[in-house]
Amino acid sequence: MFDIIIIGMGISGITAGIYAKRADKKVLILEKSMPGGVLANISKISNYPGYTNISGSDLAMNLLNQVNALEIPYKFEEVLSVEDGDIKKIITNKNTYETKKIIIATGRKPKFTDTLSEYLGKGLSICATCDGALYKGEDVIVIGNVVQAISEALYLSSIVNKVYFITKLKNLNELENKDNIEIIYDTSILKINKKDNNIDSVELSNGKNIHVKGIFSYAGYIPNTDIFKNLNILDNEGNILVNSDYETNIKGIYSIGDCIKKDIYQLVSATYDGCKAIISIINKKE
Amino acid sequence: MFDIIIIGMGISGITAGIYAKRADKKVLILEKSMPGGVLANISKISNYPGYTNISGSDLAMNLLNQVNALEIPYKFEEVLSVEDGDIKKIITNKNTYETKKIIIATGRKPKFTDTLSEYLGKGLSICATCDGALYKGEDVIVIGNVVQAISEALYLSSIVNKVYFITKLKNLNELENKDNIEIIYDTSILKINKKDNNIDSVELSNGKNIHVKGIFSYAGYIPNTDIFKNLNILDNEGNILVNSDYETNIKGIYSIGDCIKKDIYQLVSATYDGCKAIISIINKKE
Repeated sequence: MFDIIIIGMGISGITAGIYAKRADKKVLILEKSMPGGVLANISKISNYPGYTNISGSDLAMNLLNQVNALEIPYKFEEVLSVEDGDIKKIITNKNTYETKKIIIATGRKPKFTDTLSEYLGKGLSICATCDGALYKGEDVIVIGNVVQAISEALYLSSIVNKVYFITKLKNLNELENKDNIEIIYDTSILKINKKDNNIDSVELSNGKNIHVKGIFSYAGYIPNTDIFKNLNILDNEGNILVNSDYETNIKGIYSIGDCIKKDIYQLVSATYDGCKAIISIINKKE
Repeated sequence: MFDIIIIGMGISGITAGIYAKRADKKVLILEKSMPGGVLANISKISNYPGYTNISGSDLAMNLLNQVNALEIPYKFEEVLSVEDGDIKKIITNKNTYETKKIIIATGRKPKFTDTLSEYLGKGLSICATCDGALYKGEDVIVIGNVVQAISEALYLSSIVNKVYFITKLKNLNELENKDNIEIIYDTSILKINKKDNNIDSVELSNGKNIHVKGIFSYAGYIPNTDIFKNLNILDNEGNILVNSDYETNIKGIYSIGDCIKKDIYQLVSATYDGCKAIISIINKKE
């Protein structure tokens, strides 16, 4: 019988594990594939305080070393389903576990069109806050029909030379005063031309060919939450909804990191989520 | 003329600097003494994700290296006063600066009685979440008359063997069910006896002598906010009050880190504060 089982071993789940272990809780982390979560796909991280430049895989390795040093138990098993109750059950591909609390930290995956996906890390980005600084003074494309694309275009407009914003979104009043954002409607990316293995120009379906160094694609995300559908803790997009204590509408089931609905999806928000959820659990009067 | 001036170069101010610089804002950090803030006083950090065991001074050095690598401007000057206005002024001991936004990140100092202060890092702690794990299975004293002392005693009771709670606080219903918390009223610490330079036992003014390995003292904190008193942004204890965007009641003056009123005072909350404040500033429609 565990005090807390954490599902997912990204930076958020690991932080929760650190705080749970140091509070002497009986804790277990379950991970179906790789420790580190999305970190593994990030080539260079400059915005995590304490590391000037570190690859995502190196940071993931440091986190795993920390988990081992603090003797936080973890197992590589795939969670198949979760059963609520005063004592909760987690069924994996290998075992069934009983626990008082569950923290879901399964993260999310970006959506891509097939044309784009091969350019991830080679001029294609899905996060202006993370990668915008790489394109200072350059021209970039922002492509997307989700609301996030607007704020990302705005953010980039203060860094880059010019933003071409390809979208189907209308009423973009916020962008009106920005001289260096050109909105292009009713088009799509037909072909990307490379130079030295990086993006150099893009052919659009409207016949235009524009030179850009980067493409920021916002097709939205798919939270890794399919196995929790039966619990009724998700919104329409599959994000887990939590209160300010990171508890879902089911007592004792918490969620943190990129799989929840929130404002900021950064490493420093993932770590904060993990810490706050554990402190919420510990301080709860029951 | 700066976009953002950050007052204070602890981990929170540095994180704000990182996010501001990467968003290509004209930013400056002002620090009156040492980069790193309270970090310098922490001998061993195990709960900052990514570092298994690092001294506070080493983490502070890594943060300073990151500031230099990202070319975030900073100056060692003491801020004497701040003047509000559409354009804000910061007067230091050397210069006067003009800026659109100010972020106050000046931190706080723990209060100590003279008897205790020499034991900091040698058995005296001011943070159960940070240091509780060092006393697993041992007996400790929690001493304090502020509400925080109650939750810290509770937190410790799940880790240590026994908590002696010396307090003037009454109505401690939350502690009633805890068999290993003994509340001692109307006493104080007269003398601390050492063994191998660590705390070994404590003589109380009620004549008792108890063996403990650690003392957790909660006499409260003094936020480093004296110079902001004239701005009317402080509560009665000197904490800066901010909204969920980290903005004070003065437009364009923000505050982050340990000098604000909030729930969690941890490294991961300090970094979150710094990131969120900058994203709030960038996303603000004006």
